[in-house]
Amino acid sequence: MISDESVWALAIHGGAGAGSQEAGAEEHAAQIRSALADVLRAGARMLAAGASALDVVEDAVKRLEDSPLFNAGKGAVYNERGEHELDASIMDGATLDAGAVAGLRTVKNPIVLARLVLERSPHAFLIGEGALAFAERHGVELVDPSYFGTERRRAAFEEAKRREVLHTPSSRPGDTGTVGAAALDAHGNLAAATSTGGMTNKALGRVGDSAVIGAGTFASNRSCAVSCTGHGEMLLRATAARDVAALMEYAGLDVQTAADKVIHERLASLGGEGGLIAVDNAGRVSFAFNTPLMLRGAVTHCAAPRVAVLAAE
Amino acid sequence: MISDESVWALAIHGGAGAGSQEAGAEEHAAQIRSALADVLRAGARMLAAGASALDVVEDAVKRLEDSPLFNAGKGAVYNERGEHELDASIMDGATLDAGAVAGLRTVKNPIVLARLVLERSPHAFLIGEGALAFAERHGVELVDPSYFGTERRRAAFEEAKRREVLHTPSSRPGDTGTVGAAALDAHGNLAAATSTGGMTNKALGRVGDSAVIGAGTFASNRSCAVSCTGHGEMLLRATAARDVAALMEYAGLDVQTAADKVIHERLASLGGEGGLIAVDNAGRVSFAFNTPLMLRGAVTHCAAPRVAVLAAE
Repeated sequence: MISDESVWALAIHGGAGAGSQEAGAEEHAAQIRSALADVLRAGARMLAAGASALDVVEDAVKRLEDSPLFNAGKGAVYNERGEHELDASIMDGATLDAGAVAGLRTVKNPIVLARLVLERSPHAFLIGEGALAFAERHGVELVDPSYFGTERRRAAFEEAKRREVLHTPSSRPGDTGTVGAAALDAHGNLAAATSTGGMTNKALGRVGDSAVIGAGTFASNRSCAVSCTGHGEMLLRATAARDVAALMEYAGLDVQTAADKVIHERLASLGGEGGLIAVDNAGRVSFAFNTPLMLRGAVTHCAAPRVAVLAAE
Repeated sequence: MISDESVWALAIHGGAGAGSQEAGAEEHAAQIRSALADVLRAGARMLAAGASALDVVEDAVKRLEDSPLFNAGKGAVYNERGEHELDASIMDGATLDAGAVAGLRTVKNPIVLARLVLERSPHAFLIGEGALAFAERHGVELVDPSYFGTERRRAAFEEAKRREVLHTPSSRPGDTGTVGAAALDAHGNLAAATSTGGMTNKALGRVGDSAVIGAGTFASNRSCAVSCTGHGEMLLRATAARDVAALMEYAGLDVQTAADKVIHERLASLGGEGGLIAVDNAGRVSFAFNTPLMLRGAVTHCAAPRVAVLAAE
């Protein structure tokens, strides 16, 4: 199961959704492409130097959280109360160790807390006040809730409030943004991580797929590492991330066929919109989505960083 | 996929764990057997009258929550702060609709709230304060937190505090108790439901498998309905409930072989202890557990209620 030392791969996403025709959309898209490319370059440096997949996916997602361009960490969407509640999870494919957190309001980097849950807690999933107490005990960086706010997300929230709707992936052009990473390291280990602000105008306390191991995030060295994005309720009901791996492990499918089946058959049969990135244990990268676009990128030991947004790219 | 009208089945569990040699243990076991038999009889009446699997698993779990004998609803274990935080989930195998709730402190019947999330919320998973707000809006019965307390669970908590341990399934004899149900109705539909107070001395905000669709609860008419019990972190990492179904759907295993594989290979490889109940879409009931005992029972259109505790039964 251990790959040759020189084989590694990293895939990342910045959310699935619909394209925007708004003024400034092109410049915004260029910023996103540039941000994704930066994250890929940093990840490639780490992987080439022998870093673990777990460290790399945490670092990649942390960088995406820190960017205001994506719906995770800084730049998270607003819930029905005009507040932010953040979710994240991470999984180690070598051990199936996992860490998940949900309902965070003041933790600057939810993925850092999820990693600490994986490393230091006897538990795998902590929520709300208890997750905050754990964060405080471990000295995790906290911020004022206003840190997460951006004009762009506030405008989307106000529109959602006015129209009394929830924003699902393609209901509002430009409103993409859950972030994730999946990696194979040079030691042959897989890991996946996902982080989100959720859905614009979501109910207080709503958790989607991003904090749920098996739904938004899954990794096993037996098959692949997966991170999902899209309509969280549907991805949760489809156990989307685990199903990509299960189709490989139990039905013998290759990673792209498994990813396509989960998105274009399983998720679609629920009327769900979304996408996923997957990296298998031989370093093959695959993307699948049924939305007009998915912000995504990949880099491997033998391929330079490439970033794509539209399906045709 | 629609079964003959006369075919139906219900399986229930009251938790996996270790037997107790304490004074009164025999009487306690007799009470548990009697309570499980009552729930099976009520479920059989409903199923024979054409009730839906979803209604039956909700009703069965609600009855188990109302009994102080089980670690769910009344009789829930205490967390590290000497409080109760309750989790539950329910899934409809016909539609893959799901409802999940976690971190409840005052909702008398968590499974009733999970069902309401399934029916009335655009979301599938609500936690903490947001889950409470949803409960209040829908007129769900609330209780003072003291309602959940029992002498038996308080003694377990005080012992755990004194020894500074978490109680995993077989670490404290007699400390079993997550409850669950899986059913096939006469219309050929499957459903599963699970409810728990979690793990004695668990951290504030800890969520195990019981609130997680794919981990503690899963149902699909394509394969089976499953409810798990045991060391929640391990069941979560193993995506235990979904894996029973996935092994049937993707590897063509029968329900008992799939259940055994998940418990005796997948869960065991993580060092996890626990068990599960499963009912397939032909009404075959299966149990699997790697703990000394699992409180369990089943009834079908052609077999009278039977209750069992030890592995040999």
